Order: sequence, then structure tokens, then C-alpha cells
Amino acid sequence: MKQKLIFTNQVGEAVDSLVAGLGWPGVAVITDTGAAEAVLPLLANDSKAVAGATRIVVEAGDEHKNLESLAGIWERLSASEATRSGVVVNVGGGMVGDMGGFAAATFKRGMKCINVPTTLLAAVDASVGGKTAINFNGVKNQIGVFAEPVASVISTVYFNTLPAQEILSGYAEMLKHALLEGDDMLTKLLDYSPVYPAFDPDALLPLLRESVKVKERIVSADLTEQGIRKALNLGHTVGHAFESLALSRKSPVPHGYAVAWGMVTELVLSHMALRFPSDKLHRFADYVLKNYGVFSIDCKDYPALIAAMRQDKKNATPDKINFTLLHDAGRPEIDSTVSEDDIKSALDIYRDLAGI
Amino acid sequence: MKQKLIFTNQVGEAVDSLVAGLGWPGVAVITDTGAAEAVLPLLANDSKAVAGATRIVVEAGDEHKNLESLAGIWERLSASEATRSGVVVNVGGGMVGDMGGFAAATFKRGMKCINVPTTLLAAVDASVGGKTAINFNGVKNQIGVFAEPVASVISTVYFNTLPAQEILSGYAEMLKHALLEGDDMLTKLLDYSPVYPAFDPDALLPLLRESVKVKERIVSADLTEQGIRKALNLGHTVGHAFESLALSRKSPVPHGYAVAWGMVTELVLSHMALRFPSDKLHRFADYVLKNYGVFSIDCKDYPALIAAMRQDKKNATPDKINFTLLHDAGRPEIDSTVSEDDIKSALDIYRDLAGI
Repeated sequence: MKQKLIFTNQVGEAVDSLVAGLGWPGVAVITDTGAAEAVLPLLANDSKAVAGATRIVVEAGDEHKNLESLAGIWERLSASEATRSGVVVNVGGGMVGDMGGFAAATFKRGMKCINVPTTLLAAVDASVGGKTAINFNGVKNQIGVFAEPVASVISTVYFNTLPAQEILSGYAEMLKHALLEGDDMLTKLLDYSPVYPAFDPDALLPLLRESVKVKERIVSADLTEQGIRKALNLGHTVGHAFESLALSRKSPVPHGYAVAWGMVTELVLSHMALRFPSDKLHRFADYVLKNYGVFSIDCKDYPALIAAMRQDKKNATPDKINFTLLHDAGRPEIDSTVSEDDIKSALDIYRDLAGI
Repeated sequence: MKQKLIFTNQVGEAVDSLVAGLGWPGVAVITDTGAAEAVLPLLANDSKAVAGATRIVVEAGDEHKNLESLAGIWERLSASEATRSGVVVNVGGGMVGDMGGFAAATFKRGMKCINVPTTLLAAVDASVGGKTAINFNGVKNQIGVFAEPVASVISTVYFNTLPAQEILSGYAEMLKHALLEGDDMLTKLLDYSPVYPAFDPDALLPLLRESVKVKERIVSADLTEQGIRKALNLGHTVGHAFESLALSRKSPVPHGYAVAWGMVTELVLSHMALRFPSDKLHRFADYVLKNYGVFSIDCKDYPALIAAMRQDKKNATPDKINFTLLHDAGRPEIDSTVSEDDIKSALDIYRDLAGI
């Protein structure tokens, strides 16, 4: 059974039509304190199902994706006399989808579930349905099951309830998909600005749809993560190293920002190793530096960055580190091996591009 | 995917061969304090996999099938660095299978699992694999998932570590299956005594195998519990009423015993309504009264018993109550409606048979 992906900015209508399709069973909405304030009033206004639903609100933040919050959800489902024919609607970001999905999958051995992602990152990830979880004992997503929602209703209308930083973070994933997909999509994304004042939800929706389809194609071509799915690591090897460095400086950066800067550096590597076209590299770098700003490094940071890249890649050899690189937009090469000297050169060029 | 049912009294060998088939991954044994003392030393002696396994022991008793014990299992799995390719071996009764199965199904989104039921009741139920659960908030099996084990290794060698009462309780379910299956099986079971001094594990094993197959056939013929699966309620409508009465007298009786006395009464009803043969009724009643003793009732208990039967059957009308009755051994008639007067007459006859 494959979940439905519904792309629409008429979210309330879509939710009601899905709930009607299930015969109007009892509905419980699971959401977090952020979305309860910013999104739920809007959605309840447009959806009879949501307006009449039991509301279960958890504290926002990944640190609350834990057993205590989960037990609280189960208690509220019990108290509302939810049944197995009932449906849970998860309204929120990835944290709500993960934990609400797990709660639904396990209450009375499985209620149905509809996801309404309210962040760009959760929307982009929606195609990889079925990964539900909570953190446990200090380990992310330690406890969970695979359980697909009936459907995900993917929209862009709620994104402006979030800080611009949140949207840009998700947009970095869309840029990555565009690099993996080809020139057409890449050009469209680089012509668009996802943040105020240019942000237009209805213009973003078709771009988001294309982006989700790219991920869906890659994931379904490689369910076991042995091959082409590794292409989704693009930007992440350097990106994770930037994130670690920022953390060690006690000034963390959003994951998506680190991936954006990481993609710039990995496009430099792609240019050096696989002749990725210089003009596209420059256009991409300009877009990232203009929208995401600059992540400052100097050559004294190189050893720590390279050590972090090694740790990120379990299969690194003493001489080489594996990357997903690109011959061109849409032409990834997974398992490209790169020497430490090449990485240092690429970091030099990143600093040139960034003017630091 | 359907789990393997392996009937053998060479339990250790069977477990090792299953674990070998999975490539000798890491093994964790989940068991309760009872089985840890009575069964685990025997099994570890016969199984390399069990001998070398991480041992996770929970307190025995259904009242410990809760979130706290579950979290304890997850913590122990975490501490032992169990991975998704690892396997959990559940050694115990239904409580261990339910909770250990749920822990395995949810740890890192799903480890593999092998069940080794050590009680007759859990063994008889093994074919209905995949129902995992814990109790929550005072509701039995409120939280769980459907997740089948790789295999259940069904044996009779550990039953004599249990009180005779435990074996007889499970044997009542076997008697029920025999009534639903036919004369051959019924005769074999009525010729056998499952308790000391006659108890012979190797003679019981083929009977158990046949019994499990009966249940498997009925369940797989009616996965949604709309039709013939209701036949498995045989003996339970009156049985539950006896159980409630015993509870209200503050002298509870084992579930299987109540079902055995309930079957006698429902065979009386079958004789009255559907001409179930009188000689078989008498032979069955003699066996039950000899092995399970007598449950005492008098006519002042009838209103409470009938009220309990009504409550057990959501679809009872003011005049009639639904039962599964039998034309003969092997010829069940589900949804047979019976009047209150018939029930009173049947209870009178039950008392005659019991000599009370």
C-alpha cells in the first residue's frame, strides 16, 4: 500500500475529503505548541474534520519527541475513546509526523493517519512515508515502526507562519534535488526566492511537487540504500563537517544552511574531479551566498573539517574520502573518491567564492 | 509473510537452526522471572544461541505487561547494542510473547523475533501470530502492533515446570478445538490426561500440533472475524459468566476451567436446540468434571449469570442471546439464538450432571 501524496493549498478541503473517504470516523489532531498556535486556527477554519477533532498538543522541539510525550498522546487517545477505525491527523513538522505517526500506528494496534506537514523540510520529506519514531535513551529515532500514512496533504500556505530561516533550511533540500535532477529544475529554483518579500506560496507549490517527485523516484529506485539513493548525500559530507565546526564554536547553524554551503564546496570538488561546468558552479554559489550568507572558515579549520568528513564516512580509507559528486546537473556520480589535498583546494576555492 | 510453526521437543536445536538461518546475528532472550528460573537453564543447555544471548528478564504476571517493563526492555536492548539485523527470542507465556514481540517490533523500527511459548495456552495460541501488545491505562492490549515472528517453536517439554492447573487451563482450549474439529480428535483428547502421573510430553506434542492446525484453519478462513471464527467462542459465553460469578464471590477460577464448565453447559444447550448426541455430551461432561472438578451454582445465581451472558454478547436482544452451538462434533452453528428459559434449563441439567 502506497500513501497518497496530495499537493494543494486547499488543505482543509483535502483533509475533509480524505476523512469523508474513510466514512467520517472519529478524528484526533496531533500537533505541537507552535503549530497549534500558528496553523491550527487556519486549518480548523477550513476543515470540518479538524474543527470537530480531539486536539492533542505536545511541546514543540525535537527534545520532546520522547517516551513521555508519546505516553501523553496515548493517554489522550484513550481518554477520547479513539477506536481503530478512527483517524489521526498530524499537523506540524517532522517531529509531529514522526511521533504522531508512531502513536497512531501503535494505539489499539494501529489507527489510520493523515499527515499535514507545516514546514518545508517535512513537506520535502513526505514522500519517504512510513518512518515513524521517537528518540529514546539519547538515541535519535531509536524506537519506531514503518507505518505509512493514508495520505500526506502537502501545501505551502503555512510556511509564512515560520521564520525565514526555517524555509531556507528546507529549500536547501530542494536545491539538492534540483542538482540531481537537471538544468530545467535547477534554473527554476535559482530564479525563485523562497523568502519575503518575493515568497509566493502558489508559485512554490509546483516547485515543491517536482522536488518531492525527484526524491520519490530516487528512493523507490533504491529502497535498500545500496546505490543511487546515496546521491541524496550530496552536500551532506561537507555540510555535516561545517555543522560540527559551528557546534564546536558554540554557534550552531541550521542543518539546511550547512548543506547549502556544503553543496557549494562539493560542486567545487565536482568541477575539479568531474568537470562540473564552471558557470553553473558560480551561479549556484552566488545564490547560496546571497540567500544563506557566508560560513566563515580559515585554513586552521581544515584539519578539524577533514576529520569530521572522515567520521561521517564509515568507508573512508587513509588516503581518500567518498563523496557524491556531479558531472553536471542531473548526472551524479556516487562513491567518487577524493584526496585530502583536493578537499583542501576545494575549501580554498569556497573561501575565494565567499570572499573570505 | 507467514511465520513458520515448528513442532518439536528438540527446542534448542530448532532455535539454533533458525538463528543460523538468519546468519547468527546478535541474540537477545526476553523472558519473565518464572521462565528464567524454570526453563532458561534447560534451554540454554540445548542452544548455543540462547546460551550466548543477552538476557532480559521482566517480572512475571500480566500486571507487569506495561509501559514501564517495556521501557526496561528497550533500555536493555539499547545497552546491549542490539541492531536491526539482530533477533529477539521470547521465552515464556503469552505475556512474554506479547510484550517481547512489541519490544522487538519497535526497537530501531523492527528486529526479528522467534517465539518459544512455554505454557500450553501460549502454544495453542501461537498460530495467531502477530498480535503484540502491552496493557496501558488500565486497558488490556491497548498499545501494540501486528508483527509476526519469524517462527514459533512449539514444544511440550516445559509444561511440567508449571502447576497442573496451568496445563489444564490450556487443555480446555484444545478440547474446544476438538469439539469444532470432529470425533477423531475429540476421542483422542478425551483418552488423554494432560496431568501427572499420566502426562507424557511426547504424546501431547502431536495432539497439540493438530489442535494448533485447527485454530490456524479457522482463523485463516475468516481473518476479519465476521463468520466462522466466532466458532472459537464456543464455551466462552457461559464460561465468562462463570468467571464473573466466581470473581463476585471473591474466589476467582482459572479462565480455562471456566471455559471447560462453559462448554459442558453449551453442549447441553446444543443437545436441546440442535440434537447434539447425548452420549458425547455425557462423555465430555464426565471428563471435565473429573479433571476440572465442579463449579458450584444454584438457581439463585441464574439472574446474575444470564445478565453476564447478555453483557458478553453485544448483539443480544431482549428475548434471545447468541451462542455458538454444535449439531455434532465438527459441525458448529454460529449465531444460534437461545431463550432465557432454555439457558435456565441448561443450567439445571449442568447441575444434574455435576451432582449439585
